Parts: sequence; structure tokens; C-alpha cells
Amino acid sequence: MLATMLYAPGDVRCEEVDEPKILKPTDVIIRLSATCICGSDLWPFRGANEVTAPMAMGHEYCGIVVEVGSAVRTVRPGQFVVGSFCLSDNTCPHCRFGFQSSCEQREFMTGAQAPLARVPLADGTLVATDEIPSDDLIPSLLATSDVLGTGWYAADAAGVQEGSTAVVVGDGAVGLMGVLAAKQMGAARIIAMSRHKTRQDLALEFGATDIISERGDEGVARIKDLTGGVGAESVLECVGTQESMTQAINCARPGGKIGFVGVPHGVQFDGQSLFFQQKSLLGGPAPVRRFLPYLMDLVLDRTINPGKVFDLELPLADVAEGYRAMDERRAVKTLLRL
Amino acid sequence: MLATMLYAPGDVRCEEVDEPKILKPTDVIIRLSATCICGSDLWPFRGANEVTAPMAMGHEYCGIVVEVGSAVRTVRPGQFVVGSFCLSDNTCPHCRFGFQSSCEQREFMTGAQAPLARVPLADGTLVATDEIPSDDLIPSLLATSDVLGTGWYAADAAGVQEGSTAVVVGDGAVGLMGVLAAKQMGAARIIAMSRHKTRQDLALEFGATDIISERGDEGVARIKDLTGGVGAESVLECVGTQESMTQAINCARPGGKIGFVGVPHGVQFDGQSLFFQQKSLLGGPAPVRRFLPYLMDLVLDRTINPGKVFDLELPLADVAEGYRAMDERRAVKTLLRL
Repeated sequence: MLATMLYAPGDVRCEEVDEPKILKPTDVIIRLSATCICGSDLWPFRGANEVTAPMAMGHEYCGIVVEVGSAVRTVRPGQFVVGSFCLSDNTCPHCRFGFQSSCEQREFMTGAQAPLARVPLADGTLVATDEIPSDDLIPSLLATSDVLGTGWYAADAAGVQEGSTAVVVGDGAVGLMGVLAAKQMGAARIIAMSRHKTRQDLALEFGATDIISERGDEGVARIKDLTGGVGAESVLECVGTQESMTQAINCARPGGKIGFVGVPHGVQFDGQSLFFQQKSLLGGPAPVRRFLPYLMDLVLDRTINPGKVFDLELPLADVAEGYRAMDERRAVKTLLRL
Repeated sequence: MLATMLYAPGDVRCEEVDEPKILKPTDVIIRLSATCICGSDLWPFRGANEVTAPMAMGHEYCGIVVEVGSAVRTVRPGQFVVGSFCLSDNTCPHCRFGFQSSCEQREFMTGAQAPLARVPLADGTLVATDEIPSDDLIPSLLATSDVLGTGWYAADAAGVQEGSTAVVVGDGAVGLMGVLAAKQMGAARIIAMSRHKTRQDLALEFGATDIISERGDEGVARIKDLTGGVGAESVLECVGTQESMTQAINCARPGGKIGFVGVPHGVQFDGQSLFFQQKSLLGGPAPVRRFLPYLMDLVLDRTINPGKVFDLELPLADVAEGYRAMDERRAVKTLLRL
């Protein structure tokens, strides 16, 4: 089959590979309904993460089960399933505590930018629908696998609640999903920090009440203006650089919470500064599995339409163009048709 | 009057100074019933904080109001009052959000190791009792001003709740008060990390269920042993060094919360490590005022006896010995009689 391999920064290829096989009795093989490119795929594509060997790319997935390992109990061939990019047994103490992304058996999904994929720890990871969903719901269901679940976790970790004020730092796909999440959680005011017209428009569509195009100290000053000099209860940090993290911390009010989901690259916190600022921090790879059944229901009953975050659709064969379009910020997020 | 001045590291003196005066209409002058030495007083005493000019020491206080400024409305001469070491108006947005230690008008109390003290922002800061409390309650009421309130905040920030497991890093007075707080909040298991017999005994008296004398990686391994390999939901960091902070973070389970109240000295957090560990952090100078009325009630109805944390009592004239005893860990906390 054709699959996506990253050979070196900037060098992503769609090439012939062997089809995946069941390797462990807890594995499942799925035929993907669609797949996509994640903002985090750009870290190695840009050379910010080392690439020492060709990497099988892709960790967002949904599709039809085609084969199950001998120990798999909860899904069967023919079912439509979605799973998190974090593979988890969903039974260990960390999973039961709602932090499936720290599962004792955690693995990260790979190889999902392909028509077939192996999903380890299938019983813990996959959530099946009652029926095969209609085609128009596929992009939104695919989004629950990571980008929506990650934005949702940012809002959850930032303590967004009914009536609160949330600031979203980062107008990438995750930030936009953070806007959608904050809206669903009842935030009264959702301030998206973005300087790109198309992303601003998407943020407004997903529920942002205010857009701020300034960054850094100027951006923080604007947030203060909008919040009576106070700052926000909840800040969603969806980038992962020192600049964005500092901006996020400074946008929060004392006692406010920062949920950070952009994988930090070169970020350091000074203990004493954090102490005197009294800002709460919680981040990490999102425990998407905690939210997945609920998010899938919101999609299936058409309450939310996170699939709108895909603004570029390409056939898998053109995956390299998909990476380039996102790298150059010509696209927010690329859906790959199989 | 005699008051406590720090001239340089190690050089603390009890010497004649002018009596405090009302400087602003929102000030109150109190005659202290007792005062004490805080662990944080040891930072400048040890030279960890710079001392550029003689410092009027002391920020924990309770006593009788002797004079009020013209704008003071909520307390009157003759009343017994306790106030937080953080002075706050208790009306600004940060105060109303429960973070009085980030009050827009915040000042830090000084000069309380003396028989008389000026308390700025008196209406927001002071809490009066209905009656003059009996003498035996004075140490415990004094404790609510900072050391208990700070331990309480550590437990609150660490999310201690009914049935949870809490680890307390640091067996100083604040750590011991953290044990008491966790007990009051219903923690089922309270693990105190201490290698000093007298402090271990106090921790057990305040409600610790387990004592661990190991530190660092060994200490973390023992916490893991005691928690089925999982770690604790709540960790109270009550020291402020890189070693204690690292220990605290590593004792917490993924998704666990660290409340840190030891003023960080030289502490740095690596963003990526914090991200993948999924530990929640909230620290700062304690918003004691949030908890003060409740804590005073617990003392007045004799539910708690935090005054037991004072294991050395000296007359004010011997304040220098009080500092030395705490510096050399011969005393947990020194009460100064006036």
C-alpha cells in the first residue's frame, strides 16, 4: 500500500510499504476512512525534532475494523471506530484517573497517514459507533482523534466553565478547536489571539467573541484592556514556544489556569516568577480517550462541526503538498482522502 | 520600644526604635499578643536574599487594636484581631477571586517582631473576634496569620480532598501545618517526608499516616511503594529549593497537583518535562485572608491546635537566639513573648 514516510526535515514521501499486520493479540487493523496531518507532524518536518530513521507518519485516524487480534473483546470487524493518538489500556490507575495519555502501557500511534493502520491496545483505545456514520461526518469524527480532543483538554486543564473568560493563544487547528471547546463549556467570553484573517474568521465561527491580533506584551495589554485590567481565568496555550507560553501566563489573572497543549520546545519556567504570579499550570499530551465518547456523540448528533478546521483536502498521494501548505501556513489543517 | 532589625546575614538585633504611627487613614496600630519567627525570615538571615538596609522583621501577628486611622470602618480599639502577612484591600477583583495575596494594593507586613505594629489596609486585612480569646489560644491564633494559612493554601492548591492521598515535602513549620490542613480536608493518607524524629512526631500528631525519611529519588521510590506504583494526587511543596521541587513533582501521579508554598530560590522548570509528566502546579504567597475567618473559627472552637508547632518560646529580647535555633534546626518555630 501507499503510506507516508518522513526521511528528513522537509523530505516527506508517499511510498509503497507492506500492509500492517497484527503483531500482538491486543492489536486491531483498521481501514481508514480518512486521515490528516497534525501540527505536531511539522516539528520533525521542520527539523525541530531529530529524524534519525525514516518515520511512518500519522497518528489521527478513524475507520472500519478489518481484523482483530485474538485478545480483542470490545470491537469487531466491520465496526466504525475512532481512537486517540495516545494508545492506552484504559484500565490502569492513570487511565482510571482520566490521564490515559500517561497510561502505564502508553504508546503513541504511528503510520496512520495510510489506508490501513495497526492500532495497538485496541480494547482500551478504540471507541466504536453503533452504526456506520454518514460520509459527511467523517472529517469531524477524525478530528476527535487528536485535534479536537487536544483543544478540549486545553480548555479542561484551563478550567473553562460556564460564564468564564477564556483566552486562546495560537490560531492553529488546536487553538481553533480550543475555541470550540471553550464555547461548548459555556465560556461567556472567548478571546482568540490571531493575526490571520482566515483563522480569525474560523475562530469567530467556532465561537470566539473577540479577536486580538497583537502579540507579546502588546497582546497582553489588549487582554488586560478587555478584562478590566484583570486578566483571564482560563488561558489555552496551543503553540509550545517560550514566547507563546510567556504570553499565555501573562494573559492569566492571578489564580487563573493555563492549560498548555503545544509540545514545549525550549520552554523554561522560572520558579520564583511563577510563584509570585500565582498562575496554575497543567499541560501534556491530551488524554483524548477521557473525552472521546462524549466528543463523538457531539459530532454524531451534529451539535458541533469540528471538521470545518480542515481547509485543504488532498489525496494521500499528495501528502507532501499537504505538509508544505501547513508549514507555509497556507492551510490550517490538511485532510487526506484515501 | 524594642523591635527586631536585621542588619546583615546572621546579624539580627533587638533594639530601641520609634513606636509605629498611623501613616494612612486606612492604617491600624495593634499591640501584639505574641509574635514569632517565620521560616521565610531565614532566607535573608542566611544571606539567600540580599539585605541592603536594616530590615524591620516580622510579619505574623495578632493582638489588640489600639488606634485606628480615620477611614477604618470594620475594626475598633479594644478588639482582638488577626491579619494575614499579605496586606490586601479584600475588595479588588483579585481579592474577590480569592487571591488576596495578589491584591491590586498588596503590601507585605513588616515590623511585627515588636510589641506594637502598624497594619496597613486594615479593613481588608484584619479579622476581629467577637470576644477577647483566652491566653492559651494565642499561639494557635498567631499561627493562622501565616504558617497555618500557608500550609492550608498548599493543601488547597494541591487539591486535597476527602479520601485522597497527600504527600508533604518539607518538615518545617509550614510542612507540618500542611499535614494538619490535609487532615482537616479529609485526606485518607498523609505521607510526611521527614528525617527528624521530633518533626516526625509532630507530623504524626497533626495527622500524618506515614513517615518517609528518604529524600530525592529514594524518597520518590518509597512514595511509589506506598501508592501501588502510582504516586500521590496531591503534593504539598513546603521548602522552595530545586531538590525539594523535583522531589515534589516526582511524587505526584500524572494529573496530580503540586501546591508549592516554599518561596522558590533558584528553581527552574523544564517545559517539556513538565508537559510529559502531566503534573499540575500552583503556588505563591498564600492568600491567607481567604481562609482566615474559617481557620480562626477552627482554633476558637478548639477543633485544631496549630500552636503546637511552636516548640521554642523566648522573650522578644532573645529574638537572635530564636533565629539561630531555627537556622540550626534546633527549633521548628519560635514564639516570641512580648
